Amino acid sequence: MTDTIRFDGRTPAQTRPVTIERGWSAQAEGSALISFGDTRVLCTASFTPGVPRWLMGKGTGWVTAEYAMLPRSTNERMQRESVKGRIGGRTHEISRLIGRSLRAVVDTKALGENTLVIDCDVLQADGGTRTASITGAYVALAEALAWGRAQGHIARKAKPLTDSVAAISVGIVGGVPLSDLAYVEDSKAETDMNVVVTGSGDFVEVQGTAEGAPFKRTELDALLDLALVSTTELGAIQRAALADIAGIDELIGRRA
Amino acid sequence: MTDTIRFDGRTPAQTRPVTIERGWSAQAEGSALISFGDTRVLCTASFTPGVPRWLMGKGTGWVTAEYAMLPRSTNERMQRESVKGRIGGRTHEISRLIGRSLRAVVDTKALGENTLVIDCDVLQADGGTRTASITGAYVALAEALAWGRAQGHIARKAKPLTDSVAAISVGIVGGVPLSDLAYVEDSKAETDMNVVVTGSGDFVEVQGTAEGAPFKRTELDALLDLALVSTTELGAIQRAALADIAGIDELIGRRA
Amino acid sequence: MTDTIRFDGRTPAQTRPVTIERGWSAQAEGSALISFGDTRVLCTASFTPGVPRWLMGKGTGWVTAEYAMLPRSTNERMQRESVKGRIGGRTHEISRLIGRSLRAVVDTKALGENTLVIDCDVLQADGGTRTASITGAYVALAEALAWGRAQGHIARKAKPLTDSVAAISVGIVGGVPLSDLAYVEDSKAETDMNVVVTGSGDFVEVQGTAEGAPFKRTELDALLDLALVSTTELGAIQRAALADIAGIDELIGRRA
Amino acid sequence: MTDTIRFDGRTPAQTRPVTIERGWSAQAEGSALISFGDTRVLCTASFTPGVPRWLMGKGTGWVTAEYAMLPRSTNERMQRESVKGRIGGRTHEISRLIGRSLRAVVDTKALGENTLVIDCDVLQADGGTRTASITGAYVALAEALAWGRAQGHIARKAKPLTDSVAAISVGIVGGVPLSDLAYVEDSKAETDMNVVVTGSGDFVEVQGTAEGAPFKRTELDALLDLALVSTTELGAIQRAALADIAGIDELIGRRA
Amino acid sequence: MTDTIRFDGRTPAQTRPVTIERGWSAQAEGSALISFGDTRVLCTASFTPGVPRWLMGKGTGWVTAEYAMLPRSTNERMQRESVKGRIGGRTHEISRLIGRSLRAVVDTKALGENTLVIDCDVLQADGGTRTASITGAYVALAEALAWGRAQGHIARKAKPLTDSVAAISVGIVGGVPLSDLAYVEDSKAETDMNVVVTGSGDFVEVQGTAEGAPFKRTELDALLDLALVSTTELGAIQRAALADIAGIDELIGRRA
Amino acid sequence: MTDTIRFDGRTPAQTRPVTIERGWSAQAEGSALISFGDTRVLCTASFTPGVPRWLMGKGTGWVTAEYAMLPRSTNERMQRESVKGRIGGRTHEISRLIGRSLRAVVDTKALGENTLVIDCDVLQADGGTRTASITGAYVALAEALAWGRAQGHIARKAKPLTDSVAAISVGIVGGVPLSDLAYVEDSKAETDMNVVVTGSGDFVEVQGTAEGAPFKRTELDALLDLALVSTTELGAIQRAALADIAGIDELIGRRA
Repeated sequence: MTDTIRFDGRTPAQTRPVTIERGWSAQAEGSALISFGDTRVLCTASFTPGVPRWLMGKGTGWVTAEYAMLPRSTNERMQRESVKGRIGGRTHEISRLIGRSLRAVVDTKALGENTLVIDCDVLQADGGTRTASITGAYVALAEALAWGRAQGHIARKAKPLTDSVAAISVGIVGGVPLSDLAYVEDSKAETDMNVVVTGSGDFVEVQGTAEGAPFKRTELDALLDLALVSTTELGAIQRAALADIAGIDELIGRRA
Repeated sequence: MTDTIRFDGRTPAQTRPVTIERGWSAQAEGSALISFGDTRVLCTASFTPGVPRWLMGKGTGWVTAEYAMLPRSTNERMQRESVKGRIGGRTHEISRLIGRSLRAVVDTKALGENTLVIDCDVLQADGGTRTASITGAYVALAEALAWGRAQGHIARKAKPLTDSVAAISVGIVGGVPLSDLAYVEDSKAETDMNVVVTGSGDFVEVQGTAEGAPFKRTELDALLDLALVSTTELGAIQRAALADIAGIDELIGRRA
Repeated sequence: MTDTIRFDGRTPAQTRPVTIERGWSAQAEGSALISFGDTRVLCTASFTPGVPRWLMGKGTGWVTAEYAMLPRSTNERMQRESVKGRIGGRTHEISRLIGRSLRAVVDTKALGENTLVIDCDVLQADGGTRTASITGAYVALAEALAWGRAQGHIARKAKPLTDSVAAISVGIVGGVPLSDLAYVEDSKAETDMNVVVTGSGDFVEVQGTAEGAPFKRTELDALLDLALVSTTELGAIQRAALADIAGIDELIGRRA
Repeated sequence: MTDTIRFDGRTPAQTRPVTIERGWSAQAEGSALISFGDTRVLCTASFTPGVPRWLMGKGTGWVTAEYAMLPRSTNERMQRESVKGRIGGRTHEISRLIGRSLRAVVDTKALGENTLVIDCDVLQADGGTRTASITGAYVALAEALAWGRAQGHIARKAKPLTDSVAAISVGIVGGVPLSDLAYVEDSKAETDMNVVVTGSGDFVEVQGTAEGAPFKRTELDALLDLALVSTTELGAIQRAALADIAGIDELIGRRA
Repeated sequence: MTDTIRFDGRTPAQTRPVTIERGWSAQAEGSALISFGDTRVLCTASFTPGVPRWLMGKGTGWVTAEYAMLPRSTNERMQRESVKGRIGGRTHEISRLIGRSLRAVVDTKALGENTLVIDCDVLQADGGTRTASITGAYVALAEALAWGRAQGHIARKAKPLTDSVAAISVGIVGGVPLSDLAYVEDSKAETDMNVVVTGSGDFVEVQGTAEGAPFKRTELDALLDLALVSTTELGAIQRAALADIAGIDELIGRRA
Repeated sequence: MTDTIRFDGRTPAQTRPVTIERGWSAQAEGSALISFGDTRVLCTASFTPGVPRWLMGKGTGWVTAEYAMLPRSTNERMQRESVKGRIGGRTHEISRLIGRSLRAVVDTKALGENTLVIDCDVLQADGGTRTASITGAYVALAEALAWGRAQGHIARKAKPLTDSVAAISVGIVGGVPLSDLAYVEDSKAETDMNVVVTGSGDFVEVQGTAEGAPFKRTELDALLDLALVSTTELGAIQRAALADIAGIDELIGRRA
C-alpha cells in the first residue's frame, strides 16, 4: 500500500508543499501566512500587556485563539457568520482546539500578566485548515513573544514557551493511511484524524473520527506513525521561518 | 500502579455504578435515564416520519442530537443558554460528537426517510456527561427504532443499525490511567480522553487532550486499553436494558 | 353538574395524584420533583450569599425564577429556545409569574442580602405546568431557606417567609367548572384560570382567560371556589414534604 | 372610603379624560390615537388579504397584535428593544394579552382568509398603557374591518365581530379600590388588576396581582365591580368614535 | 424646467408645508413633532447629567441619536426591528447621520459632562424622513439644552451650540432638480441627495446617490443650490418654533 | 497650498502606490487583491446562475456586496462581528455603499438571471478601505462577468456593464485638500469625502462629512476636482489589471 501514488503525485507520507511567510502583517506583533498547497491561512498574534479582569493579580498570562473562514475561501460561497448573527459549532470547536494546542506549550507563569490573541483567518481552503492554523499560529505566537520580550513586557530570562507545536491531518482513504489530506481526499476518507504534536514528539491532541466504518486499532497506530513523521518535518519548517529572530531559541524552556 | 485505590474505593479500571432506566418518558418514542454514579442524563429519541427538505427523495434517513445541561445540574448554577441567547462552544461540540457517534452505527438507507432527534439533557453532572449521553442515547435510539418498525415506518426486514455504540471517559491522574473519571478526578487529570467504541470493539471517536503536560504514546495505549474494557461492560448493560423489547436484535445488521 | 365523571375518573373538584419528592438534587440547596399526574417538574433552588450589584447595601434579598420545558417534554418535540436564540413570550410570562408568586410570601428584609434563583424545568408536560411549578418551587425555596439559616447566612430568628403559596389550574370544560385540568381538558376548555393562593387562603394571582366565549361572573366565582379547595389540599402536601426539616415552621412569620 | 378624593381630584370610580382620535393614520386601514389622561397610544390596524401559510385553505382569518413603547414615552428614557436585540418579557406578555383580547370578539370564520395586525405604540406612558391599548385597538380593528368589507375582502353580510371589547386597570391603593390608575397610583398599589370586558359585560381576561400583601376575595369583588362600571363607559366612547362609519353596527353579530 | 408643476402643485424649489410642534412630550426635556406634508416624526431629546464611563473626567459632553420607524408608518406594514432581533443597515446609517449632524453644531466642551440622546421616531413616512428627523431633532436638542441651563447642569454663560442645523432631501426627477421629494417623487428619482446645512449656510453632510444613471457635476451644483434655499427657509421655521424660550439665542456661540 | 509635502512625501493630488493583483483566488470566479499603500483588501466575486426567489422570472440579475475587516487588520485588534453576534452600523453602511456603486454600472437586464456577490475583506487597514474596496471590487466583478460569458451564463453579445467605476477618499487636512488620505491624515481631517466616479467621469456617490467645522462650497469644489483626477488614474490601473482577459472591453456597453 505504501506504493500508492496520490491524485497529485504525492506518496502516502508526503505533505503538500508547505510555506510560511512570517511577518506578513505590518501591524500585528506576530504574523504568519502559511500555505499547505492551496490551503492558505493568515495567522496574526496580538500581544497586549495586562490580562482580563478575572485573571488580574495572579501573575499568569492568557492565550486564546479565534478561527474563521472568509466567505469565498471555499469552492462555494458560504454565508458570513457575522451576517448569520452567530458562530457555528465547527468554528467554535476549531477555535477551542487551536487555543488548547497553543496553551499546551505556553508557560503562563513565565509569560506574566500579558494577553495573546491569535487569529487564524482562512483565505483559501483546500483541506487541513485547522492543522495549518495551529502550525502557523505557533510561528505568529513565537514572533509576538519575541516582540514582547524586546519591549520589556516579558522578563529578559523568562522562557514563556515549553516547546514548539505543530499539527497534521491524517486519514485512511481507500484503505490506505495518508498524511496531509487535500480536500478531495478528505471528502472521501473513511477515517480522519487530526494530531497535534510537540517538537519533542509528545501528543497534545489526538482527534480521530470514523467518517464511514469504525476504525481498528492497527489503523489508528498507522495514522499516529504518519503524524509523527509529518509533524517532525513541520517543526523544521517552523524553525526555519523563525530563524532570523535574534534569541528566538531562548524563549523555549523545558517543562519542569 | 494498578493497585491504586481511588477516592471512592474503585480500582483504576472500574466504572461507577451504571444504571439505565429505559422508557422513562411517557411521550417520547424512545427514552432512557442513564446514571454513572451521580451523573444523570435524560435521553429521549423523537421519531418523525419524513426528512428535512434538503434530503427528500434520496431514500435516506437523518439522525441528529442535542445536548444541554440544566442550570443547576452543576455545583454552581450556570446561566441558561436560552437566556444568554446563544449556545456555547462546548455545547455545540458535544452535540456534534453525540450525533456523529450515533450515525456511525446507523444505516441511513435501511432507516429510510425517517428522522430521529436525540435529546440528552443532563439533570445532574459529576463528570463524564458526554460519554454517558452517548451510551444512554444509543438505548433511546434503539427503542425508537423498534417503535418505528412496529408502526411500519421502517421496513419489516430492514436493519437500521449496524452495531451498538457506547462511550467512556478515561484519563491519567497522578500518573495513573483511570476509567470513568468522576468530576474530582477529571478536574485534576493530566490527560483526558473520550473514547467511543462499537459493540464489535472498533473505534468511532478517539479524543485525547493533554490538560497539563503532553502525553506519551505509551500513555495513549494504556488509556485505549482501559476504554475497550469499560465499553465492553457498558455494551452488556445496554443489551440488558433493551432485552425486553421483542425483536430488538433484528434491528442490527452487519455493515456491508 | 357536580356529578360529572371526568375522562380519568376524577370528580370535578378532584386533582390528579400529586407527589413531591423533596431533595431530589444532590447539589442544589433546595429541590423538589413534583408530579401532578403525568406532569413532572424538577424545581431547584440555588441559594447564594450576596445580592446583585444594584441591590447591595440595602439589606434586602432577591428571589427570582426561571421556567423552561425540555424539548421532548411535550407530545411533539419542540425546538430548544437556546437553539432559537431567544426565549419565547410564554416562557417569559411563566418565569415572571413564578417569581412574583414566590416573592409574595418572602420577607426580603428578613432574608437579608441573599439571592435565591428557582429553576423550574418541565421534564414531562400534561397540563398545569405553571401551577405545578409554583407549588413545587415553594418546597424547594423553603428547603433552601432552611439550608441558608443552618449555614448562618440568615439570622437565627429571622422569618424570611410570611406564608406558604400554592397554585392550581381550573377551568370550564363543556360548561362544567373543573379543577386541575389535564392537557386533554385544557385544550378544549372554554375558560382557563390559574389561581395562586397563600396558605391563609388569600389571592396572590388570579389569571382568567376566555379561550372561547367570554365568561360570566358566576362562572368566575365557581372557579375561584374550586381553586380555594384545591390549593388548601396542596398546602397539606407541601407541609408533609417539608415536615422532616427541623424547624421548618419557624421560617414562616406573620406579615406585619 | 368612596368619598376619597384622588391626587388629581377624581373619585374612586372615575376614569381620567378619555379621548379617541379615529383615522389618525393616512396609511393604515384602521387607526386610533387614544388618550387616558397623559397616557397616549397610537393603534394601527393593518388589513392584508390572505393568511399565513399554515392557515391557508382553512377558511379562517388571523388577528394578532404587537405592543411597544417609544424609548422616551416614560419618565426616564428606556433602551430600545431593537437595540437590545430582543423583546423583553413584559412586552411579549402585553402583546399576547392584546391579541387574545381582540380575538375573543372576532369570528375568524366570518372574517375569512384575511389577516389583521394591530400595532399599539405607546407615545406617552402614565399608567394603564396595556388597557388603553386594548381599548384603542378595538376601534382601529373595527375601522379596518369596515374597510375590508367596503373593499370586498369580507363578505357583504358577514359579521366578523361578535361584540366590542374594552379594558381598564383597577387597583387597591391605601386600602381603597380605584379605577384607571395613573402611574403615581399604580406604583404604590397593593393590588393591581387588569380587566378586559366585552360590550355585553362578560369577562375576557381578569389578571389580578398582589403587589404587596395578598388580597382577599371581598377586595377582588370590589375591583371587578369598578371594572364593569368603567368598561361600560369606555364602550360608549368607542361607539362614539366609530359612529360616523356607515354600517359599522352590522359588523357585529351575536355569538352562536 | 423651472416652470415644472409637481404632482401636488408645488414648484421645483418649494418644500411641502412644514410645521414644528415643540414641547409635544410631557416627559422629555426637549421634544418636537415635525411634519413635512404627510411625513411626521416625533423627536425627543433626553438630557442626563453625567457621561458614559469612557468619557468621565474629560470635561466634555456626549450627543447621540437613534432613528426608527413605527411598523405601520409606511404604506405596507414593516416587521419591527425589535422582533427581527437586529437593527437593519438603513436604520443604523440614518441614526449615525443624525448624530453626526447634531454633533457638528454642538460644542461638547461648553456642554460639559452631560449626555443628550435624541430619539427620532417616524410616525408616518412620505419621503424625507431622515432630513425631517435632523431638522426636528435640532429643535428638541435646543429645547433640552435650554432646560439643562435652567436646571444649572450647563454653566450660565456657556454656549453649547455653535450654530443651528437643518436638512433637506433634493433630487432629480425626470431631469428636473426638485426640493423636498415626497415618496412618489423619491421612488422615481434618478439622483437623490440629502444635504445638511448650518444656519450660516455651510455644509455638514452632502450625500448624493445616483439611483439610475450617474449624475453630472452641473446637476450636483443645481441640487446644492436648491438645498441651500430650502434649508434657509427651514432655519426660519426652527427659529420660530423656539422663539418663546427665554434666552434661546444665548445658547449659540460662534465657532472659535 | 499645492506645494504642500505630505507626511510620506506625496503631493496633495498624489495617491499612494496602487497595485491590483487580479485572479488572486483559485476558487472565486473573479478576484483582486488591491493595495493603496498599506491598505490591502481582498475582493472576490462569486457568480451563481439564478437569482433569489423574489426576483425569479423577471429576467434581471442581482449584484450585492459585503464588506468586513479582519480583527487584526487595524492597529489595535477589534472584536469580530461574528463573535459580537451582530454587524455594526459602519460595516452595514459600507457594504451598502459598495453594492450601490457596483449596481450603478451594471445593466441587470443584460446580466440576465444571474447573481453576483462581491466580498471585500480588509486584510490590512491604513485609511481608504471603502474606496479601495469599490475600486478592487469592480475588477473582481468584471473578471467574474467575463467568466459568466465564457461559461454561457451571459448571452454572447450582452453588455452587462455600462461603464467602469472607481472611488477615492479625499479630504481637507490643515486647510489643504488632499487625495487618498492615509490613516494618520484621515484621523485629523476637518472634512472627509468619499467620491465614486464612473470611467466617463460622472458621479455615482458623493459623501462629504464635516468632521470638525462645517465646510464651504469652495472647499467642496476643490475636493471634487481632486477626486476626478484620482479616479481617472485609478481607471487606467483597473484597465491594465483586466487587459489580459480576452474580450473584456466588449462587456461594457453604453447606457441607453
